[in-house]
Amino acid sequence: MPDDSLGDLRAIMFDAFGTVVDWRGSLINSLKRFGAERGLDLAWDDVADRWRAKYWPKMNLVRRGEMEWTILDELHRISLLEVLEEFKVPSLPADDIRFLTECWHRLAPWSDSVEGLLLLRTKFIIGPLSNGNVSLMVDLAKFAGLPWDVVFGCDLFRHYKPDPETYLGACGYLNLRPDQVMLGAAHNYDLAAARKYGLRTAFVPRPTEYGPGQTTDLKAEEAWDVIAADFVDLANRLVGSRGFS
Amino acid sequence: MPDDSLGDLRAIMFDAFGTVVDWRGSLINSLKRFGAERGLDLAWDDVADRWRAKYWPKMNLVRRGEMEWTILDELHRISLLEVLEEFKVPSLPADDIRFLTECWHRLAPWSDSVEGLLLLRTKFIIGPLSNGNVSLMVDLAKFAGLPWDVVFGCDLFRHYKPDPETYLGACGYLNLRPDQVMLGAAHNYDLAAARKYGLRTAFVPRPTEYGPGQTTDLKAEEAWDVIAADFVDLANRLVGSRGFS
Repeated sequence: MPDDSLGDLRAIMFDAFGTVVDWRGSLINSLKRFGAERGLDLAWDDVADRWRAKYWPKMNLVRRGEMEWTILDELHRISLLEVLEEFKVPSLPADDIRFLTECWHRLAPWSDSVEGLLLLRTKFIIGPLSNGNVSLMVDLAKFAGLPWDVVFGCDLFRHYKPDPETYLGACGYLNLRPDQVMLGAAHNYDLAAARKYGLRTAFVPRPTEYGPGQTTDLKAEEAWDVIAADFVDLANRLVGSRGFS
Repeated sequence: MPDDSLGDLRAIMFDAFGTVVDWRGSLINSLKRFGAERGLDLAWDDVADRWRAKYWPKMNLVRRGEMEWTILDELHRISLLEVLEEFKVPSLPADDIRFLTECWHRLAPWSDSVEGLLLLRTKFIIGPLSNGNVSLMVDLAKFAGLPWDVVFGCDLFRHYKPDPETYLGACGYLNLRPDQVMLGAAHNYDLAAARKYGLRTAFVPRPTEYGPGQTTDLKAEEAWDVIAADFVDLANRLVGSRGFS
């Protein structure tokens, strides 16, 4: 049953890491394979978690102006070097560091993501609005089969979410008012920012994004415009209401 | 037979108007339908040609800094108002002006474009690198079924082709060296600029882009890296050489 309260909704932009793709499961698989090939026996789950734990601190250096604009690929590389040092891994060749950093370009979608996006795409403009850079998002879409109409990476704005320049920048390039654009995300903070700047909001929980012991973002913390079980459910609710024409 | 002289080619960016889509034929059809509905009997072929004739003069105002940065949709709108005045058309409602301006969002692809792009997409990152703005390119891709991996409009660079910021900006967002990126275009000037800034070049002639009496861009004016008969021929030559991996 389509939701008719969303007015002239024209585009849905998605957070990528965690919302569309399973970064943690994919990363652990890739790291384990790498470790087996190199004979490096580490607690790769912990490596993945420590690596991701540096995501916010690194981006916040940029957001606060304490580090010049730096794309996420490079923040991932810097963070990886720190993590490997923490795990006492001997210095790896540059090609290995590059290969590992680019594991973030090869993440599997959640099982419902592609089916839901293909449905949504029949009525709406869809694209990522991710803290990843454009090249990362393009590679990820090729790898995971994500049928985007447009690709927004934060290097287009030289700001990271939740800075307003990202949400409003995407609306600007789409030549749409914020209320014609929805953010789809598994993270309440991201939706709160999108709502603050006038966008519509859709929450899709990803309760195992951070592994079996996840404690955050298990449920909607505000009355978002749509709260869906997964991407197919989101599509079933939205396709049929006024879309792309 | 794939061309192996192109090294590590990873992405092909395409000029859109004239190269991928038939702007003139599509525009004339749309204008004629509009005229019939409104009872406006004009030489619509001439209207289309006069409208397009204002493309370069208007963009050059922006390129020379005599007009502040203005997206192509708005240049199209301003040019349309001038053309309608030249044809003595009484003032039209704003909705009509908007509808007509957005005819540029609804242009049919040449008959080989989509088939060629689908083949090229299996090996390369493909996208438009157009003087159109992002929202125009997104609508055009939806309308014409263009299977882009990424969408570059000139508003991302706040420069129009052939300014270097456009070609090099696209390479930068793709995180590729210019020699890993090819421009595909039906226009020699565009390829000359792309080559000057280090990109690979592919010429695809569109000898009726400007109608039956076209005198320009009927053939390659330099030894471009590839000179193809159409997009399917281009794909046959390039798919099989080292592509997306």
